[in-house]
Amino acid sequence: MYAIIIANAPDFSAAPYAPMLATADLIIAADGGGNALFAANMQPHLIIGDLDSLDPAALAHFQARGAEVQRFRAEKDETDLELALLAAVARGADQIDILGAIGGRWDQGLANVAMLALPELAGHHVRLVDLHQVAFLVRDSASIPGTLGATVSLIPLAGAVHGITTQGLRYPLDAATLYYERSRGISNQITSLPAHVTIGEGMLLIVVAV
Amino acid sequence: MYAIIIANAPDFSAAPYAPMLATADLIIAADGGGNALFAANMQPHLIIGDLDSLDPAALAHFQARGAEVQRFRAEKDETDLELALLAAVARGADQIDILGAIGGRWDQGLANVAMLALPELAGHHVRLVDLHQVAFLVRDSASIPGTLGATVSLIPLAGAVHGITTQGLRYPLDAATLYYERSRGISNQITSLPAHVTIGEGMLLIVVAV
Repeated sequence: MYAIIIANAPDFSAAPYAPMLATADLIIAADGGGNALFAANMQPHLIIGDLDSLDPAALAHFQARGAEVQRFRAEKDETDLELALLAAVARGADQIDILGAIGGRWDQGLANVAMLALPELAGHHVRLVDLHQVAFLVRDSASIPGTLGATVSLIPLAGAVHGITTQGLRYPLDAATLYYERSRGISNQITSLPAHVTIGEGMLLIVVAV
Repeated sequence: MYAIIIANAPDFSAAPYAPMLATADLIIAADGGGNALFAANMQPHLIIGDLDSLDPAALAHFQARGAEVQRFRAEKDETDLELALLAAVARGADQIDILGAIGGRWDQGLANVAMLALPELAGHHVRLVDLHQVAFLVRDSASIPGTLGATVSLIPLAGAVHGITTQGLRYPLDAATLYYERSRGISNQITSLPAHVTIGEGMLLIVVAV
């Protein structure tokens, strides 16, 4: 099952994603993420969060058209996106794309990236997507999507990543270590297809320019 | 010594930072970061990077006015910002503000945040700054700047952070652990001054809304 979650980056516009949203089995608005859907005249199946940032007119409109609402108290430990991710998994989504996750507050953007490492998401295909780039977490091995010449960055998440071996990249890695604080994995490039990465230990974020 | 580094976020505008830049002992343009200085008619002391993104007209203008240039080959392991940070430290900067580090490519923004963890920066006061927020790394303890009511987020960098104790925050932590992949530390608030945090183990990013 394919779910799309709309997070709350303030300048996010949903209209360019209409074809993608049309293919989703489940569309979740993480609180104020629903504002972008409302502006583009699109409807979520589920609205989740403390509802401190969703326009009340949008909420009323969505509810009148049958959207489900899960409201949490403001003093919760989880962000709205974390709640949305857990809800998507609970409803059986195995493929989850997140829109509007980066581009507003730094703290929220960083937390949204870190959430890819939630243990509840292991075994699911979860991506952060915008019009220019796609990011996803590798826990063991993965194909790297993208066309010949595409810029690819390999970013250690939550500490060093060991035993990294790549195929199809301009600057190959062979059982290499990337350290969290060093930027060595930035701006690699796809030079043959299919590109692929395997890792031995750690969590590696892949960012591909699209 | 106070250094300001201009990184390469594409939409960064230097003009609002003119008063801040006027107080710097050392202004470093990390490659294309110089384009924003050129557009605002401001001059760096040092330009550093592979010079693949700095407008040649800006480079010529800066050089004619006495700027130093450190050019590196494109196939380097370090990003331009990493080179700029190491240069600032080598020249004796103990306080370093980084502008234009976030807001362009996700991979570069994430790498720019991770660079705060460079061991060469330990003992230096290094901040990411824009008009709305300030971010810095805590390795042991720190005062949290900001006014009463300001939103503060505590974000574990490079893995879990243990032994976190806060003062002056609405949701206090007492010898607590924050896990990398959980968003519990997002959107705390300064409720009494001075606000303060100490940590036992790990690296904690503080993001304050200004």
